[in-house]
Amino acid sequence: MAAERKLRMGLIGGARGFIGPVHRMAAALDGQIELVCGAFSSSAKRSQETGAELFLPQHRVYDSYDEMLATEARLPADQRMDFVSVVTPNYLHADIATKALQAGFHVLCEKPLTISREQADALVQTVNNTGLAFCLMHNYSGYPMVKEARGRIKAGQIGAVRKVVVEYPQGWLAGDFAAAGVKHQSWKLDPELSGGSCCLGDIGTHAFHLAEYVTGLRVAELCADLSIFIDYKQMEDDANILLHFDGGARGILYASQVSINDENSLAIRVYGELGGLEWHQEEPNTLLVKWPDRPRELVRSGCGNAYLTPAAQAATRIPAGHPEGFIEAFANVYLAFAQIVRNAAAGAPAGSVDGDFPTVNDGLRGIAFIEAAWESQRSDRKWVPLV
Amino acid sequence: MAAERKLRMGLIGGARGFIGPVHRMAAALDGQIELVCGAFSSSAKRSQETGAELFLPQHRVYDSYDEMLATEARLPADQRMDFVSVVTPNYLHADIATKALQAGFHVLCEKPLTISREQADALVQTVNNTGLAFCLMHNYSGYPMVKEARGRIKAGQIGAVRKVVVEYPQGWLAGDFAAAGVKHQSWKLDPELSGGSCCLGDIGTHAFHLAEYVTGLRVAELCADLSIFIDYKQMEDDANILLHFDGGARGILYASQVSINDENSLAIRVYGELGGLEWHQEEPNTLLVKWPDRPRELVRSGCGNAYLTPAAQAATRIPAGHPEGFIEAFANVYLAFAQIVRNAAAGAPAGSVDGDFPTVNDGLRGIAFIEAAWESQRSDRKWVPLV
Amino acid sequence: MAAERKLRMGLIGGARGFIGPVHRMAAALDGQIELVCGAFSSSAKRSQETGAELFLPQHRVYDSYDEMLATEARLPADQRMDFVSVVTPNYLHADIATKALQAGFHVLCEKPLTISREQADALVQTVNNTGLAFCLMHNYSGYPMVKEARGRIKAGQIGAVRKVVVEYPQGWLAGDFAAAGVKHQSWKLDPELSGGSCCLGDIGTHAFHLAEYVTGLRVAELCADLSIFIDYKQMEDDANILLHFDGGARGILYASQVSINDENSLAIRVYGELGGLEWHQEEPNTLLVKWPDRPRELVRSGCGNAYLTPAAQAATRIPAGHPEGFIEAFANVYLAFAQIVRNAAAGAPAGSVDGDFPTVNDGLRGIAFIEAAWESQRSDRKWVPLV
Amino acid sequence: MAAERKLRMGLIGGARGFIGPVHRMAAALDGQIELVCGAFSSSAKRSQETGAELFLPQHRVYDSYDEMLATEARLPADQRMDFVSVVTPNYLHADIATKALQAGFHVLCEKPLTISREQADALVQTVNNTGLAFCLMHNYSGYPMVKEARGRIKAGQIGAVRKVVVEYPQGWLAGDFAAAGVKHQSWKLDPELSGGSCCLGDIGTHAFHLAEYVTGLRVAELCADLSIFIDYKQMEDDANILLHFDGGARGILYASQVSINDENSLAIRVYGELGGLEWHQEEPNTLLVKWPDRPRELVRSGCGNAYLTPAAQAATRIPAGHPEGFIEAFANVYLAFAQIVRNAAAGAPAGSVDGDFPTVNDGLRGIAFIEAAWESQRSDRKWVPLV
Repeated sequence: MAAERKLRMGLIGGARGFIGPVHRMAAALDGQIELVCGAFSSSAKRSQETGAELFLPQHRVYDSYDEMLATEARLPADQRMDFVSVVTPNYLHADIATKALQAGFHVLCEKPLTISREQADALVQTVNNTGLAFCLMHNYSGYPMVKEARGRIKAGQIGAVRKVVVEYPQGWLAGDFAAAGVKHQSWKLDPELSGGSCCLGDIGTHAFHLAEYVTGLRVAELCADLSIFIDYKQMEDDANILLHFDGGARGILYASQVSINDENSLAIRVYGELGGLEWHQEEPNTLLVKWPDRPRELVRSGCGNAYLTPAAQAATRIPAGHPEGFIEAFANVYLAFAQIVRNAAAGAPAGSVDGDFPTVNDGLRGIAFIEAAWESQRSDRKWVPLV
Repeated sequence: MAAERKLRMGLIGGARGFIGPVHRMAAALDGQIELVCGAFSSSAKRSQETGAELFLPQHRVYDSYDEMLATEARLPADQRMDFVSVVTPNYLHADIATKALQAGFHVLCEKPLTISREQADALVQTVNNTGLAFCLMHNYSGYPMVKEARGRIKAGQIGAVRKVVVEYPQGWLAGDFAAAGVKHQSWKLDPELSGGSCCLGDIGTHAFHLAEYVTGLRVAELCADLSIFIDYKQMEDDANILLHFDGGARGILYASQVSINDENSLAIRVYGELGGLEWHQEEPNTLLVKWPDRPRELVRSGCGNAYLTPAAQAATRIPAGHPEGFIEAFANVYLAFAQIVRNAAAGAPAGSVDGDFPTVNDGLRGIAFIEAAWESQRSDRKWVPLV
Repeated sequence: MAAERKLRMGLIGGARGFIGPVHRMAAALDGQIELVCGAFSSSAKRSQETGAELFLPQHRVYDSYDEMLATEARLPADQRMDFVSVVTPNYLHADIATKALQAGFHVLCEKPLTISREQADALVQTVNNTGLAFCLMHNYSGYPMVKEARGRIKAGQIGAVRKVVVEYPQGWLAGDFAAAGVKHQSWKLDPELSGGSCCLGDIGTHAFHLAEYVTGLRVAELCADLSIFIDYKQMEDDANILLHFDGGARGILYASQVSINDENSLAIRVYGELGGLEWHQEEPNTLLVKWPDRPRELVRSGCGNAYLTPAAQAATRIPAGHPEGFIEAFANVYLAFAQIVRNAAAGAPAGSVDGDFPTVNDGLRGIAFIEAAWESQRSDRKWVPLV
Repeated sequence: MAAERKLRMGLIGGARGFIGPVHRMAAALDGQIELVCGAFSSSAKRSQETGAELFLPQHRVYDSYDEMLATEARLPADQRMDFVSVVTPNYLHADIATKALQAGFHVLCEKPLTISREQADALVQTVNNTGLAFCLMHNYSGYPMVKEARGRIKAGQIGAVRKVVVEYPQGWLAGDFAAAGVKHQSWKLDPELSGGSCCLGDIGTHAFHLAEYVTGLRVAELCADLSIFIDYKQMEDDANILLHFDGGARGILYASQVSINDENSLAIRVYGELGGLEWHQEEPNTLLVKWPDRPRELVRSGCGNAYLTPAAQAATRIPAGHPEGFIEAFANVYLAFAQIVRNAAAGAPAGSVDGDFPTVNDGLRGIAFIEAAWESQRSDRKWVPLV
């Protein structure tokens, strides 16, 4: 069945910060989704201002997410939003997502999933009970060359994985911290709002998800060395973590917010018995492929590169050499999620299908990762299992 | 005055090829423009199919651009499209743009402007007569780091320009041409549709515009060595051109469609008396800045990089390290054009204002460039002036 | 006093493998040292063949190092070698170096220093007792940009160091191991000859020395995760190690010989409170310098780059843009060592002076590092002090 | 027959500047050549000082090259130098080389060959008449990856060559020229000493030779646009040149000494019908290989990379990942030349054998190139044949 209309998205949060606009741009990019309503801020005034800037009709701009969920649920089916995107500070994720699901809406939620394991477990339960679609925004998995890496590993091209090095160095908190007043004001630096983890919650979970997504392996145990260099609110700003994967692969994960002048230098290297792969987020359209006895190859994203795996081709909009970036990768997650929501609208199941987007279970893994890392740190940096 | 609604765009062309979707994505990205109507193909059937895929109401999908311009012009002001984007094969640009302007619509048009100098001169006249806004889509000028380069040169940071090297090697026509049936079918390879120039019209004009845009200088004369390696339709597929700029700067421009495996490797290097600049389209978020007695710098695009020029900052949507690419640059041209269209809707003049987007005059320069290059080639590759 | 002659070098080992020739080329490069004698192999025949290839007079080619040390010691002062270079398998280092020192010769020795802590302690003692010059060949410290990094950190340019990431991934043992017969024959894969450590002894100690050399900090404790992927002789071929430095800096060191298709990808990143530094051995002439609020800089090696520290300038032979590589860095260690030997010949002390080359104490640190790493591994990968 | 001794080299010039030491280091590197005598300067005092620094016996250090050639010729065969290296300012090349050949010595000479076509023709004649070996130091042809490129083209891997882009941008004369007193003093800036060409003679001939060496094609005609930006001695400091090769390939050659902050950014790109090749001198150990329908490959220099052509393998001293640079490439030219000199000593012909080093004929091509470029420039930048 051909689609007859754009999907209708509601947005909770996003009045401030850079990630709200990214969600809106990513959702709009492919012409499949339209923003129809929002509760953009805990401040009703700011919510209304944002709604006006986005050209929304006033009656679809809400003062609170509770009001939005209740009102939208009562709208006729041909007006009601189809799904809600949650881009609030971390501490609200669980409450909003739970209520949205209970009100019958599919949910796309920013990471980390929640601020505790308990919340995460409950949310998994709610998703399963409602049978609705749930997407956790690990946007880096939307890059075509990340999908290419995953596809090649799945197909056995590099053999059994031996080693994974995933890193996410960033300089956000480095430099003259005292002078950087704006940074202080980020909710990410308020343990009550962020959930008590800074570096791991903000970027470490991305690195963790990327490692599991690309390799298809699960981390079995870890040993974490967390640091607090910016002595501000006692949250970690640097993490060096050793990983053991199921099946014997070894790994290193490091995430840092004091890596001065580094931007979002997320990168992953995977070494297998037969070959290796390397990808850097800041030059996302190249995948370096390594072979034992012949030259390494520069695999490139782009329509028309017929040698790419189908998933990588499908995640590309333009021919090679026209760089696609962060927003396009983000939009790929939206597209994959939107397809499941469309299918659900047409009667298909939504909750347990594989749509090649991160799910609530990936979110749970991320929370388990944060908690295991802190447990290791607190117990003299010992190895602890990740369950 | 705050904007109260999205601008309404009509699209002519774009049912096939990759550039139509790019226009739609770029226009949609920032939530400032909505596509309201289109005549997407010379085939009425294909136009309707495309309109349906884009969720347009059937009555706003037209069988021909003549019908579209006539019908839209009669719609009430609160429904009528505000401007039209022209993404057809080159030979139609002049006719469509002229009629659209005469029907009272602002126009955004793909490059090259027309297929002859005569057409181009007439179109300039029409734009001037109507006083409407006209944007020529030289999308590479929309990249933040291109604007940074332009801004730094304008501010005198590298002193008087001595040398410019601009290149656009591409492998589109290389490889097993006979087997690449799809390529044969491109209208770009039909001289009647493309206007008789392949490499120069398709990519050479981009390189030419980039050189003049970044340096703020005008090419005064040139010496061209054009080649036809793929002996298919007798259009040039490779161009090596020496440039003399007003004021004494020297330059090299080369564009090629037989540079096997190169993608869209547009790059520019500018050397002045005090410093130099280097930019590569395939890694668009870095500008290399060169100084005589100290290390070269990697200037990076991104919100929050306070050292950037205002124009570069304004052209950036996300913090450094989250790569923005081709579509975002394209969207910057749309945004700048849209601002002028908005201002015009509010009563401001549109036709002669500087909105930091390429205009009909830039289009005319491009046509003059193509014709001068061919004139040079035909007269034993002599130097010819570019007027 | 101007030098009046070349220094005379004797060589022990080097008939096979690639490192012997490197020593000879590095020693010869600057015209300060001449090879005058050698015991090139445990096989007298092979030693003679090598000597002949090197155009040595037959009577200066020895069948054993014992014979060489004894005979050379009896030669008149104006013929006798000034120092000996030891490039044998690891297990011989201690015996040869000790005997050479006792025979009155300065010694330059390949790493690792010895195959046990006990041997290393004894050798330190012998060096101290004899007062002779001793150089351990950590050649990577000879690169100009490594010296630049060290100089900048020493001068406080990046402030207090917070984090160090040093890596040495290599694919030597990856790929089709069974087919790579030659590799099997390397003494490095025979625990009796190598000392029982493969990855750490061969490349890990280089990474370790580089981290301490560049930062000027000492590792206080570590937690090691060693792996054996190539199940051949039960030596580690991969090492992931967390580091704590004196003063609070954190670090990661990883070395690997199963990182397929990686060559000698030694790299170091150091992040301080005020700035950061990054260097890659495979592109050794660039040092990336990172600042909080301005663009990163590409500091380049080369005579005439007046902004470089004196040590980096002194370590460079040619103007920027003429790449210097591995052999030149190696030769820098020889040059620094040779200067001390020259000074000693002129009556200056040799044993306790700072010549900017790695010493026996650096060698001891390397052995302590290997032993601590294995102790950590054997005690369930706990943290252990490095004394 | 195995070699029984090192070859004996005499050096003319080299007391000042950086290229003399490079010759000495390159000659010494592989232990095949020893410096036995020299006339290092037109100043006898400086010649003696240099000889002393090089530990030469006083009687082998000469006050003039005439004295050196005469005296060495009279020495017994087992002491006499085997060949002479000429590293003086350009204007002396012809006289020295001619006299050396006439005195019976093989010659290795810096580029450009001479300062006029007339001199060059005469020197070719002398070489042919004497039957001695003559090497022109186009050192860039000594890089392993340059030989790899040449070998692959020769073997037909990229098919018929269509396009060549060779560039040598350099910032030597840019920046604050007035303040750079040292530069003024270079003989390269004195037309009487350099021969009247600056940019072309110094670096343009390298680019030209590289293009002909790698492709195996000859330039048939050219169109040159030469510039004088640094108005000092009226020699060109920038050159943009269009090339036509025999057989139809097109090309661009540009060389510049005002490309601020560029170092020795010699690079070449060759595009053929089946593939393409790209090499950059500043990262000399990688050759980028391009294919139409599969990923580009990073071909890497290094012993053990069995996929390399024999010539590239033979030009490599150490395993991949241990960077070899400028001096090593230089030394490869010396090694190839030395082999012919050795063979000649054993009775083989020297003058007309292919030793994979640049010859007097390559030198003649370079002089013809300079003269054709200037002829084009002087005749209104017309196309002129290169004979």
